[in-house]
Amino acid sequence: MGEGGFKNRTTKITIVGLGLIGGSYAKALKKAGFNEIYGIDVQVESLEKAQTAGIIKKGYTDSKEPLGKSDLVIVCLYPEDTVRFIRANMSSFKPGCIVTDVSGVKDGLIDSISSFIREDVDFVGGHPMAGKEYQGIDFSEASLFEGANYLITPSEKSKQESVGLVRELACCLGCSSIEVVGADKHDRMIALTSHVPHVIALALISCNDALEGKNFTGNSFRDITRVANINEKLWGELFMLNRKNLAEQLQDFQDGIEAIKQALLKPSPDELEAIMKNAKQKRGELD
Amino acid sequence: MGEGGFKNRTTKITIVGLGLIGGSYAKALKKAGFNEIYGIDVQVESLEKAQTAGIIKKGYTDSKEPLGKSDLVIVCLYPEDTVRFIRANMSSFKPGCIVTDVSGVKDGLIDSISSFIREDVDFVGGHPMAGKEYQGIDFSEASLFEGANYLITPSEKSKQESVGLVRELACCLGCSSIEVVGADKHDRMIALTSHVPHVIALALISCNDALEGKNFTGNSFRDITRVANINEKLWGELFMLNRKNLAEQLQDFQDGIEAIKQALLKPSPDELEAIMKNAKQKRGELD
Repeated sequence: MGEGGFKNRTTKITIVGLGLIGGSYAKALKKAGFNEIYGIDVQVESLEKAQTAGIIKKGYTDSKEPLGKSDLVIVCLYPEDTVRFIRANMSSFKPGCIVTDVSGVKDGLIDSISSFIREDVDFVGGHPMAGKEYQGIDFSEASLFEGANYLITPSEKSKQESVGLVRELACCLGCSSIEVVGADKHDRMIALTSHVPHVIALALISCNDALEGKNFTGNSFRDITRVANINEKLWGELFMLNRKNLAEQLQDFQDGIEAIKQALLKPSPDELEAIMKNAKQKRGELD
Repeated sequence: MGEGGFKNRTTKITIVGLGLIGGSYAKALKKAGFNEIYGIDVQVESLEKAQTAGIIKKGYTDSKEPLGKSDLVIVCLYPEDTVRFIRANMSSFKPGCIVTDVSGVKDGLIDSISSFIREDVDFVGGHPMAGKEYQGIDFSEASLFEGANYLITPSEKSKQESVGLVRELACCLGCSSIEVVGADKHDRMIALTSHVPHVIALALISCNDALEGKNFTGNSFRDITRVANINEKLWGELFMLNRKNLAEQLQDFQDGIEAIKQALLKPSPDELEAIMKNAKQKRGELD
């Protein structure tokens, strides 16, 4: 990258995969003033849409040319495809370039990429904590990451300046909290804050009375089940890759449900109220 | 009430309890054109605020006078206080008046009120499915019930015209779906659509890593735990009054969590994806 990172906006950036997330990166970076943005996708239609919208300079189905000239490559694919893409295109990356990703699990992924990555290419994991229940570039927007949390998971080989560059990238997207964290901790925390909520949505909407309850819902039921409108290929993969952490966090959550069920059996509401007071205090600390 | 219900806006209405819900009824009814609205509260301050804001014509700490002249009484108290208030003031209600409430549980409440209510007073239960995580008249607003579900639970004694009047009341508040339902079904469905979501919020925020996960949250975690900012006196009472239904619905939910945990142990994601596809379809039917 040379010195200065994004001091000017001439950095050449390739975004791999122009779906909801990749498209939103392109739109946000274009809005932030970058003009040398290239797109790679297997779907010509997505590339054409991005080019027509003016958010990429040029689209490619063949990766060789854009990778060869890009200082920063943002891989916006599913976790296993991310590893496959980087491995398959290892020889095409520009010497000195930085590669980052958006995958929602990191532990196995970083280990795997670290095992085959070239010495002159630096991989720094990234995870923007934002999304939608819809897929594809048509739903992408420049503001998708505004105010979101952004997690950066360097590998052991990552240079500090590469980590700094990815941090700057998150700033350009408008993220409000940017945290550098180890891959193992990332996956353990994400299991609780992202994967468990999706399990909850799935389990709640799967309840026998869920559809009969249509006219009985308040906001809380609709809020919780919103993410049940899920992309099963992506989330099936995320869950399986993070299953050990997910099972552990689910057990902690299940213990909490069980404690409330037990409190319901008590003659007085005291125990229930104590659980509620404690929860209210913790929720207050979250904001 | 005589014929015609709300055909004109001269119906005298008393709202008992000017907190978040009672205050929002007053504001919404005032906005809908009613001018003969009285308020009863033990807190003089709430009455003064309501009167100063012009949303009630007059406030009372003594119930006798407003109840004696009101055609419609809306009791906006906690469930057990609702029963206590109606019982204690039984002799003050105007002959032919309709009494409704806002309580989130109905089964025991309707039975109890039916057991002592005068023959010339008609009680029709009501439950607006809206609220906030904040208490008091300061947070009340005319639009609180706009687009919300409204459940009406008549007793066996309720006259059809009284049910019609409460339906009209819900219309005046701007509710989008108004459903007449038996008290037992009400409580069973509410256990799933309202009480279980609150248990989920409490259990999730109570997890060991919840606060450490502060910078790891996406919208789903914040959405789910939002209602953990709970009024423990009200919700402790609601949970205890509905504990049998709540325990049963929680069991159904827990079975769903367990099914996903088991699917995580399979060598392929097929079972997980099948659960997700099914859930996605059900969530689509909810909208």
